[in-house]
Amino acid sequence: MKKEIKIFSPATVANVSCGFDVLGFALDTIGDEMVVRKAPQKGIKITKIIGQDLPLEISKNVAGVAALTMLKETNLDFGFEIEINKQIKPGSGIGSSAASSAGAVWAINKLIGSPFNNLDLVRFAMEGEKLASGTAHADNVAPALFGGFTLIRSYNPLDIIKIPTPKNLMATVIHPQIEIKTSDARKLLRETVTLKNATKQWANVGGLISGLYANDYNLIGRSLKDYIAEPERSKLIPGFDNVKQACLNAGALGCGISGSGPSIFALCNGEKTAIKVSDAMENIYSKIGIAFDIHVSKINNKGIKILENR
Amino acid sequence: MKKEIKIFSPATVANVSCGFDVLGFALDTIGDEMVVRKAPQKGIKITKIIGQDLPLEISKNVAGVAALTMLKETNLDFGFEIEINKQIKPGSGIGSSAASSAGAVWAINKLIGSPFNNLDLVRFAMEGEKLASGTAHADNVAPALFGGFTLIRSYNPLDIIKIPTPKNLMATVIHPQIEIKTSDARKLLRETVTLKNATKQWANVGGLISGLYANDYNLIGRSLKDYIAEPERSKLIPGFDNVKQACLNAGALGCGISGSGPSIFALCNGEKTAIKVSDAMENIYSKIGIAFDIHVSKINNKGIKILENR
Repeated sequence: MKKEIKIFSPATVANVSCGFDVLGFALDTIGDEMVVRKAPQKGIKITKIIGQDLPLEISKNVAGVAALTMLKETNLDFGFEIEINKQIKPGSGIGSSAASSAGAVWAINKLIGSPFNNLDLVRFAMEGEKLASGTAHADNVAPALFGGFTLIRSYNPLDIIKIPTPKNLMATVIHPQIEIKTSDARKLLRETVTLKNATKQWANVGGLISGLYANDYNLIGRSLKDYIAEPERSKLIPGFDNVKQACLNAGALGCGISGSGPSIFALCNGEKTAIKVSDAMENIYSKIGIAFDIHVSKINNKGIKILENR
Repeated sequence: MKKEIKIFSPATVANVSCGFDVLGFALDTIGDEMVVRKAPQKGIKITKIIGQDLPLEISKNVAGVAALTMLKETNLDFGFEIEINKQIKPGSGIGSSAASSAGAVWAINKLIGSPFNNLDLVRFAMEGEKLASGTAHADNVAPALFGGFTLIRSYNPLDIIKIPTPKNLMATVIHPQIEIKTSDARKLLRETVTLKNATKQWANVGGLISGLYANDYNLIGRSLKDYIAEPERSKLIPGFDNVKQACLNAGALGCGISGSGPSIFALCNGEKTAIKVSDAMENIYSKIGIAFDIHVSKINNKGIKILENR
């Protein structure tokens, strides 16, 4: 059995317009790198974090909390050290906490011969999410662990469906560097919605899932509509409406808020369009004068992957 | 070109638990039979209705209204006579008005060389639905016209997706002979729903659509949950909870209210189970002492079909 593993744990886009709280997909060109190694001492130790200023203390670190939750269901006479090269900025809305939580438990599971399945790993990683945002949501950890598009059909019992991804589907994601806390974005949402809007929302969820199964890019685009969160949350993102319009003009299938923002994603048919859309997004935020990161990526159908086995 | 056509226009199950107002499927063993023939006089004439006591006057008959709406977009120098053998009882909750509305426009379209596509025909047939229930809904006329399972992704513009049907999927439908008006069933629904329930609902729509594409019968069953209409409307159907439990015990994948009731549908994997479920349903209503009709049917993947060309 391996002693040490280096992994890539992807950034993820949750909600995906119509799929509020239930849909998500994984990216390929942005993610955390983590080294996890067996150590003689029981328990978890986070030995190094580079890239971001985050706590090494395991009870305050999402990777530590997720890993500890997992260890409680094992009976190992050894422990693990974790190093995190944090590439995804916390608060970016592309699953920063999820990548570290999911990465930690996935890597440990590999090192001990994979006694746990993906659904178990989601359950453990959700405890990291709980630390990060107060709710144990799965819409980022699920796509990180399963890869591709995932649907959280139910939390109790936990039921996650992997949806196939059309092969030319690309995502362009821009992270304008403003701060939106998930908890603040949640507060903008009302506890009730009109039946009329809810019905439109699930009609579009049905359309998006159909489009993904049927490789119908146009249907995917038509279904990327959000009647619930976007009308409220987009107010927190300067330039959102302009970015969305510019993406659609540049040929994007659809465009929406990634998770609770501030990142904005667009889905595109093919790399050429995805790059055009990237240029369009850049152009808007350059004019507004807000710094940004931008990512053009295939949908990552594999999820977390091994970079090195040592 | 044919002078006269005899068709079968199927009964349909709308809503399908999670898919309130957007999903529906067509049955094979119950439907209206209609004869539509060219006539020298312009316009529409309903010459005969057997099976039910319904108005011959075209402005008061759903088939008449749908057909007239269609004729407005043509420029024909002849008209049509319609005979209806009404097999589906009005108010049964299995798309009685939809079958006649859709059947009329489908048959006329065939007789004039099919200038209209299915989406046009849905649009015309919806006018019949408007006469019947006050709202121009498409969740019964769409599966009657397209066959199989249909999703109304959007009304404006009208966008209907045909979802593939796993080949062993069967429906058992019981019509307990009590009266529930669609308008009364609508009044039971609140104008707002909790975001929590709405989210569960669209998670299940996603699950059901996935199950249908992936031939995953178990997933179809897990997704047949309704947090919106069933908790309210089931109160209007005596014995509903018992029937549902008995269906599940007999092996049904899931069970719910057909349309706005009073019919109850169950989906099953294979005919053997569908018949067991039928026995279980019968048993309950025999004990309660309510008369009923019961139908065991494949999902009708074709929709309306020609019985005779003359």
